[in-house]
Amino acid sequence: MKELLKLMDFRPDIRVVDATLRDGGLVNDFYFSDEFVKALYETNIKAGVDYMEFGYKASTELFDEDKFGKWKFCRDEDIRKVVGDNGTDLKISVMADVGRCDYSKDIIDRKDSPIDLIRVATYINTIPAAADMIEDAAKKGYETTCNIMAISNAQERDVETALEILGKTPVNTFYIVDSYGALYPEQIARIVDLFMNVAAKYGKKVGIHAHNNQQLAFANTIEAVGDGADWLDATYSNMGRGAGNCAMELLLGFLKNPKYKVYPAFKFIEANMVKMKEEAKWGYDLQYLMTGLFNQHPRAAIQFTKEQRKDYTEFYKELVMHD
Amino acid sequence: MKELLKLMDFRPDIRVVDATLRDGGLVNDFYFSDEFVKALYETNIKAGVDYMEFGYKASTELFDEDKFGKWKFCRDEDIRKVVGDNGTDLKISVMADVGRCDYSKDIIDRKDSPIDLIRVATYINTIPAAADMIEDAAKKGYETTCNIMAISNAQERDVETALEILGKTPVNTFYIVDSYGALYPEQIARIVDLFMNVAAKYGKKVGIHAHNNQQLAFANTIEAVGDGADWLDATYSNMGRGAGNCAMELLLGFLKNPKYKVYPAFKFIEANMVKMKEEAKWGYDLQYLMTGLFNQHPRAAIQFTKEQRKDYTEFYKELVMHD
Repeated sequence: MKELLKLMDFRPDIRVVDATLRDGGLVNDFYFSDEFVKALYETNIKAGVDYMEFGYKASTELFDEDKFGKWKFCRDEDIRKVVGDNGTDLKISVMADVGRCDYSKDIIDRKDSPIDLIRVATYINTIPAAADMIEDAAKKGYETTCNIMAISNAQERDVETALEILGKTPVNTFYIVDSYGALYPEQIARIVDLFMNVAAKYGKKVGIHAHNNQQLAFANTIEAVGDGADWLDATYSNMGRGAGNCAMELLLGFLKNPKYKVYPAFKFIEANMVKMKEEAKWGYDLQYLMTGLFNQHPRAAIQFTKEQRKDYTEFYKELVMHD
Repeated sequence: MKELLKLMDFRPDIRVVDATLRDGGLVNDFYFSDEFVKALYETNIKAGVDYMEFGYKASTELFDEDKFGKWKFCRDEDIRKVVGDNGTDLKISVMADVGRCDYSKDIIDRKDSPIDLIRVATYINTIPAAADMIEDAAKKGYETTCNIMAISNAQERDVETALEILGKTPVNTFYIVDSYGALYPEQIARIVDLFMNVAAKYGKKVGIHAHNNQQLAFANTIEAVGDGADWLDATYSNMGRGAGNCAMELLLGFLKNPKYKVYPAFKFIEANMVKMKEEAKWGYDLQYLMTGLFNQHPRAAIQFTKEQRKDYTEFYKELVMHD
């Protein structure tokens, strides 16, 4: 947190990305009602959010369309039904995973699409494939980010090498993704520094996507802001895989740019998220703290949650045994 | 967070204070079962916690004993029933509020008491009264801390003056108390610096007691650690007034001193806190975020919670109108 005394002011370069449908979709298999999505879109506009991520551009070859809601696939025509020509300041984003997306076919030219931003999600070992997707999307006219997942498991030298490769692509933003919710603010500071150094060299921005396994998603996000990260992911009511993400309502309350308004977030949560929370299950609990502490993928904790288990100590023993 | 690269090591001066009964008692009017208190005591010993706070030494003249559980009053004989002669490394603490405690009568000599530490809680405008209580307790042989509440509302010059007064007393530790859960880590860093400067001059320690209104209680606590604060308050499952406190299980998972063990915390939570959470109500919710944002006492939010209201936007309007 290096921006001491800057709390009263704001950086106009900040961009807030609403990932509620995309990361929240991992909780409910992307089954959101049309009313929910429409209300979310209108809320984001009122709240001054910069980007709304609708979901994934997942391969229909790999994923069964009967087993997921439409936002797993984010067809342009489905987005159009919500945003029309989107004559607003809110830009539209989708995520495309390396190896799970038919991008050359499914991503059309930007001028024919309601989408503005393609976010390419990758692990550290598939950076060349990510670079290829970025080149493809940029050539088609899109803004792009590269979201490096499971960053807490990546070696710093590998990250540097990866960013050097990405620096030479047209990507706009390098994204730090703490998929395991394993990082403390002190580590975030170190990682942001590493990212910022390469970003400065190539004229790129840095972003942060945090998870709440240790009740640190918001704290790590504002730590990253203080260290120079400009692109910030958040979701309403923290909705997201496992322990969830940085809460949009916390982030909007923190940011000082008067374009951001927190009241529309409260209104949306009252009308939509309270009910959603009764149907879908996410948020901080001991099993997520544990996988965070062990720097592991939350999948075992998600399974524990699904089975409505409450034998936390047995779960801990399972983690210790398999570690 | 200035202790970059120190995450692998630890400071032996760190002290962890379990405030579950004391701050959690504000949620359930101090009605804890004897089994719960005994299990908590044994957990703290196993977890390597340094101090266990049993509750308040409240005046029986001011407070009706029929309306509160016994830990509002913390009679020495009630503590004895739990700890016996307490031949353990866990020290026993109670809190005494300025103006709500008959300390000259109710606090007896340490040699005749199971209590080791008296924590004097005060607002910034009653420091001389706090100093008098500290002198009294120190003369009787106790360790003492002075916990300055609602620090987010205090002017820095007033805080300096207050700490200068306290520096001349025998108090061991100056405590920062973010009663309103209003502070961001960046502000914590600034306040800890202020406290550390006066503390260094008088050979005192600095402590932190955080609230979770903005999901920052743990983050603010570890920010304070990085800035030099040694005394850290936490409660199991965040139990505490309103949005609750820094979670003990998060703090024990973070601290690297091998004397601290997180597994007993998981065990205690599984056996005791899951059930407690069904009976008593605390934890992050929008109404607490709102009072935090407005830098207000959480009492209106607590009332909102008690009435099981869910009309967050109405509550927001009430706060705006009364601000």
